[in-house]
Amino acid sequence: MIQIRTDLAIENREIYKEKNDGEVPGVEVEEDSGDNYTVTRVKILDEIGEKHLGKSKGIYITIDVPKLKNTDEDLKDEISQLVAKEIKGMDIVKQNTKTLIVGLGNWNVTPDALGPKVVERVLVTRQFFIAYNKEEDETVANVAAISPGVMGLTGIETGEIIKGIVEKTKPDLVIAIDALASRKMERVSTTIQISDTGINPGSGIGNKRIGLNNNYLGVPVIAVGVPTVVDAVTMVNDTMDLIIGSMKNVSKVGTEFYSTLEQVGNEEKYHLIKEVLEPFMPNVVVTPKEIDSIIDDLSIIIGNGLNMALHHGIDLKDVNRYIR
Amino acid sequence: MIQIRTDLAIENREIYKEKNDGEVPGVEVEEDSGDNYTVTRVKILDEIGEKHLGKSKGIYITIDVPKLKNTDEDLKDEISQLVAKEIKGMDIVKQNTKTLIVGLGNWNVTPDALGPKVVERVLVTRQFFIAYNKEEDETVANVAAISPGVMGLTGIETGEIIKGIVEKTKPDLVIAIDALASRKMERVSTTIQISDTGINPGSGIGNKRIGLNNNYLGVPVIAVGVPTVVDAVTMVNDTMDLIIGSMKNVSKVGTEFYSTLEQVGNEEKYHLIKEVLEPFMPNVVVTPKEIDSIIDDLSIIIGNGLNMALHHGIDLKDVNRYIR
Amino acid sequence: MIQIRTDLAIENREIYKEKNDGEVPGVEVEEDSGDNYTVTRVKILDEIGEKHLGKSKGIYITIDVPKLKNTDEDLKDEISQLVAKEIKGMDIVKQNTKTLIVGLGNWNVTPDALGPKVVERVLVTRQFFIAYNKEEDETVANVAAISPGVMGLTGIETGEIIKGIVEKTKPDLVIAIDALASRKMERVSTTIQISDTGINPGSGIGNKRIGLNNNYLGVPVIAVGVPTVVDAVTMVNDTMDLIIGSMKNVSKVGTEFYSTLEQVGNEEKYHLIKEVLEPFMPNVVVTPKEIDSIIDDLSIIIGNGLNMALHHGIDLKDVNRYIR
Amino acid sequence: MIQIRTDLAIENREIYKEKNDGEVPGVEVEEDSGDNYTVTRVKILDEIGEKHLGKSKGIYITIDVPKLKNTDEDLKDEISQLVAKEIKGMDIVKQNTKTLIVGLGNWNVTPDALGPKVVERVLVTRQFFIAYNKEEDETVANVAAISPGVMGLTGIETGEIIKGIVEKTKPDLVIAIDALASRKMERVSTTIQISDTGINPGSGIGNKRIGLNNNYLGVPVIAVGVPTVVDAVTMVNDTMDLIIGSMKNVSKVGTEFYSTLEQVGNEEKYHLIKEVLEPFMPNVVVTPKEIDSIIDDLSIIIGNGLNMALHHGIDLKDVNRYIR
Repeated sequence: MIQIRTDLAIENREIYKEKNDGEVPGVEVEEDSGDNYTVTRVKILDEIGEKHLGKSKGIYITIDVPKLKNTDEDLKDEISQLVAKEIKGMDIVKQNTKTLIVGLGNWNVTPDALGPKVVERVLVTRQFFIAYNKEEDETVANVAAISPGVMGLTGIETGEIIKGIVEKTKPDLVIAIDALASRKMERVSTTIQISDTGINPGSGIGNKRIGLNNNYLGVPVIAVGVPTVVDAVTMVNDTMDLIIGSMKNVSKVGTEFYSTLEQVGNEEKYHLIKEVLEPFMPNVVVTPKEIDSIIDDLSIIIGNGLNMALHHGIDLKDVNRYIR
Repeated sequence: MIQIRTDLAIENREIYKEKNDGEVPGVEVEEDSGDNYTVTRVKILDEIGEKHLGKSKGIYITIDVPKLKNTDEDLKDEISQLVAKEIKGMDIVKQNTKTLIVGLGNWNVTPDALGPKVVERVLVTRQFFIAYNKEEDETVANVAAISPGVMGLTGIETGEIIKGIVEKTKPDLVIAIDALASRKMERVSTTIQISDTGINPGSGIGNKRIGLNNNYLGVPVIAVGVPTVVDAVTMVNDTMDLIIGSMKNVSKVGTEFYSTLEQVGNEEKYHLIKEVLEPFMPNVVVTPKEIDSIIDDLSIIIGNGLNMALHHGIDLKDVNRYIR
Repeated sequence: MIQIRTDLAIENREIYKEKNDGEVPGVEVEEDSGDNYTVTRVKILDEIGEKHLGKSKGIYITIDVPKLKNTDEDLKDEISQLVAKEIKGMDIVKQNTKTLIVGLGNWNVTPDALGPKVVERVLVTRQFFIAYNKEEDETVANVAAISPGVMGLTGIETGEIIKGIVEKTKPDLVIAIDALASRKMERVSTTIQISDTGINPGSGIGNKRIGLNNNYLGVPVIAVGVPTVVDAVTMVNDTMDLIIGSMKNVSKVGTEFYSTLEQVGNEEKYHLIKEVLEPFMPNVVVTPKEIDSIIDDLSIIIGNGLNMALHHGIDLKDVNRYIR
Repeated sequence: MIQIRTDLAIENREIYKEKNDGEVPGVEVEEDSGDNYTVTRVKILDEIGEKHLGKSKGIYITIDVPKLKNTDEDLKDEISQLVAKEIKGMDIVKQNTKTLIVGLGNWNVTPDALGPKVVERVLVTRQFFIAYNKEEDETVANVAAISPGVMGLTGIETGEIIKGIVEKTKPDLVIAIDALASRKMERVSTTIQISDTGINPGSGIGNKRIGLNNNYLGVPVIAVGVPTVVDAVTMVNDTMDLIIGSMKNVSKVGTEFYSTLEQVGNEEKYHLIKEVLEPFMPNVVVTPKEIDSIIDDLSIIIGNGLNMALHHGIDLKDVNRYIR
C-alpha cells in the first residue's frame, strides 16, 4: 500500500514502478500524445489493481501539459477541447443527459477554490428546462451546478448536501471538480485528472469523509481534478533525494550516506521527515506564487471543457463566450 | 387584497389603515419603543387577518431604527441585542435547539446579498458536535449554515436544496435570512422584520416559487429580512402623491387634479404608472448609493443577533469577536 | 444653462432641442449608424456652444447600442471594435504613444466600479519597456494603468494622485474611464461616451473637484464613460411627464393640470421634486437589478476596445485572450 | 554579508550568532516580554552594524507572539495595543502628525495582500480636514491611505506613485505595510516587525526596486511587516539540517556526512539546494494552508494598532468599531 500523499493515480503508478519492474498487476495503461500534451489512461481492472494503486476500480485519465503555466491562449483552447473529448470518450454523457456539476473546496482558500471557480464558469440551463417545461433542447443539455462549501464553513458534510440535491433533482450524472495534492511541484497546474470513479473519502486537499461516488449517490460520478498544492513533507523528501543524489558522485562519504538512506526505504524516510517537520510547520502547503491566476486559468479551461462535453450545440467557436 | 409590492406586514397594515378606519380585523398589534427604536409586533390571528394583509398567519416583528444608517456602533450593538431578544421571545429557540441558518439571495447582486453575507458572519458549530460526538455543549448550540444561491446561478430551486439538507441533517429549526422590498425608501436599511411564518412564494427581492416554511420543510422556520430596495414604480407612485399633495393647496387646478387622482384609487394608479414605466425601465431597482456598506453593517447586526439568540454562552461582550 | 443632471453631451443637446428649434449654436453634429448602433459626434466649437451645452469645447462621441443589454457576444465584439475605431479616429493615439489609463470610481460601490474593472482588463506593458530598456515594440504600445480610488477611501483627491503619477511617468496621453449619470434609464448600460475633453469637476457619479484634463495634467486626456445610474429626481421627473402626458387627453382636468405644470418650467419642476424627495431619500440611485453583470460586460467591451486602440499588433482575433 | 533570504533583522542577527560568539558589533539589542509575547529591539548603530546585518541603520522592533495563530480575540487586542505602543515609542508620531499609510503588495496574491488589507481597515480622515478646512482635531489625526498595487499590475514603480503622492499631499510621515519572507515557518503570521528605516530595495515578498525611505521620499518612513511566506529553498535547507542533525548520532556514516555538509558552509549549501530545486519549482512559496484567514486577522491587528497609534482619541474600547 502506498503511503505517500498523492491524489493522482499516475503518481501511484510511478511510485510502484520505482520499486518494481513492469506494469502494475491488475492495471492497463494506454498513452496518447500531441505536440503539447500526453494523455495517460490508467485502467484499474480489478481488486489486485485497486490494492496496488490504493484507488478504486475504474479509469483515470491524466492530461499532462508541461507548458500550461505559460499564458498561451491557443494551448488553453486545445486543452479545453481535449478535456471535452476525454469526457465524451467515457461514454457516460449522451445528448440528453441531465448533469449536476459540483464544485468542491473552500472558496476562501485560494488553492482549494478550483471547484467553486469552475462552477461560476459553466453554462447552467436546468432553470430554462423547468420554466419552459422541456425535456430536451437542440443546442444545450440540462445542467445544474452548485458549490456546497466545506464542512468548516457550513457545519455540514459536503456529501450530505449533494446527496440531498441528487434525491430532489434526480440528475443522470454528477461531475465533481476538486483541487488535488500532487507529490511533484512540476505537476501543479499542468496536470488534469479525469476519472469515472467519483471522489473517495480522504482525497482532495480538504478532508472529505463521505465519498461522492455511484455507490453513495446512486448515479455515475465523473471526477475532474487538478493538483494545486504539494505537501511540504513530500517536497522536502523529493528535494533531499535530488540533493543527495547529486552529492553521491562527488564524495565517498556522500556515496555511503546515500546508500544508507536508500536502505531506509521511501516510506520510512517520508515518515522520518514528517516527524521532524511537523512540530515546526503544521498545515503547511507549497504552492506556486501566482496560484490565484493559475486557478483562474484552469477554471476557464475546465469550464470550457465541460461546456463542450455536455452541451451538444457548443463548440470551440462559442465557448469563450459562455465564460465570465 | 393588497397589490402594492411590499414584503413588510407593517406596510400592508399601513396601506389598510390608509383606506379604512381602525385596526385590521383578525390582527393584533403590540408596540414597544426605546429611545432609538420602535418594535411593532403584528400578529395575524386567523384567515380574516390573512386575507386583509395578504400574509400567512403568525407573528411579524418589525424593528424600526431610523438612525441605523449612521455608523453609530453602540446603536448597532443595541439593535443586535434587540434582534436576539425578539427571536428568543418567540419561544422557539431552546438551549439545545439544532438550527440551520439559510442565507437566501444572489451574492453577485449587491442589494440581494444580505443572506449570504449573514451566513459568513454566524458562528457555525455543527461540525464540532459531530467530530466530538456530542449532543450538547455548555457554551454553544449546534448551528449549521448555508447560502444555496439562486436558481439563475444553480439551475435548482432554493427550496429543493434546503429541503434536501433538512432531510439529511434534521435540524429543529431553520432561520432564513433574505433581502426584502419596501414601498418606502426611508425603510431601506432601517427596518428589520422577524417572523415565525417562514418565507412564502413570491416574497423577497428574487422570485422564490417554493416556500421555506414549516409546511414544506417540516420544521419551524423563522424569517429575518431587511428591505434593501424599493421598486421604481412604488417610488414614483409615492413621490407623485407627495408632489401633487403639495400642489393641491397652491392652485385650484391642482386641487381638482388631485381629487381626480384620488378617485382613481391606489391600485389603479399603481398599475397606470407601471404600464407607463415598464417599457422604459424593466427590472429597475432603487437603492441607496452606499448599499454595499449598508449590507455589510446589517450583516454584522443580524449575525451578532443570531449568535446571541442561538448560542447561550455568547453575550454582547463576545459577540463582535465572532464576526469576521 | 442646463440644470438637469446628466453627464452626456448628447442629452444636454436633447434638452436644448426640446425647448428650441434647430441645432445648438456653436455646435456641430455628425451621425453614423449601423444595424445595431448609432454614433453621434457632438463637436462643441466655441464658447457659445460651451455655454449652451454646459460642457467644455471638444468632441463628444456617443455610441448608442439599444440591444447591448442582451448578452449577444458578436454584438459586444462589434462594439469593442467601434470603440477602438472612434478612439483612433480622434487622431491622438499614434503607434508609440505612451498611455496612462486611469480607472475612476469606487470599487466598493457596484455602479461606480466601471473604471477599476476596466483597469483590471487592459493589457499593461510599461514594466516590460522599462525592464528591456526599449522605446518601442512591434506589437504593443507602452501602457500603464491605475485605479486611484475615491477620496472617501484614500483621503486624497483623485486628481492629485494622477497628477503626481503623470509628473513621474510622463505619459503622452491619459485615458480616464468613469461611470456616468444619465437622465434616461434606457441609456444606462447601452450608451458609451468618448470625449477628448477629459473629465471636468463635478461630472461622473462621484464628486470630483479637480478636473482630469489637459489643462490640469499637461497632456491630452480622453474620457470614456458609460451611464450606470439615473438619479431618483430625474427619474420621477421624467415619469411624471409621461404619466401626466398620458392623462392629458383623458380628462379636461388633466389637460388643465398639464398646462399648469408646463408653465412651471423644467428647471423649477426639477427643483420642486428634489425638494419634496430629498428628506425621504438622500443619496438614492436608480440602477438596473443586474448592474453587477452589466458592469462586467461593459468592462470587457471597453477593455477590448482600449487594447485594440492602443496596441497596434492586437486585433479582434486576439482581443478576448487578453481579457481576464 | 548574509545571503540567506529573510526580511527580518532578528533573523539576520540569529544567523550571525549561529556562526559567531557574542552580539553583532555595531548593534544594540533590548528585550521585553509579557506572558504571550517577546519584544526584541535591534538597534543598528553604525556602518559596522549595517554591514554585519545587511540592513540600514535604525531600529528594528520585532514582536513575537507564538500563539497568535490561534483565534484568541483578547490576545489580538493585546497585540494591537502593543503595536500602537511600540510605534508611539519611536517618538515620530505626534498629536497632529499628518500620515500617509501605504499598503504595499498585490491584492490578487493572497500572501502578498497584507498591505492592501490593512489599508481597507484604517480610519482615513484627511478628506474631512480638507472639507472643514481644519489643521487639527480633538479626536483624530490627519490620515490618508493608499494601496498603489504592484508593477505587474500597473506598469509603474510603486515608489514613483508614492513619491508623487507625497509631493502633492505633503504628509509628515509615511507608514508602509508589507508582507515579508522569513526563513522559519514558525515565524509566519506570529511575528510583526516595525522599523524606522522604511523599506529598502529588494525586501518584501515582491521585488521593489526603489526604496520607500526618508532618503527617497523626504519624510520619515515607518515600515510594518509580517512574514507570510517562507521560500522553498530556505525551507528545504533548514529541514535538511534538522534531518541530518537527527541522523548524526544514529550512524557513523551519518556523522561523517554531517561533518562533510558542515564544512560546505551555509551559503554554499543554500546555493546548492537552490540550483537543484530551481528547474523543478520556480517561484514556489511555502505558506500556511489557512493563509487567507491569517491575513484577515493580521490586518485587523495592525489596522487597530495603527488607529490607536495615530488617532489620539481612539483607544481599545473604540478600536474594533473602526474596523470593517
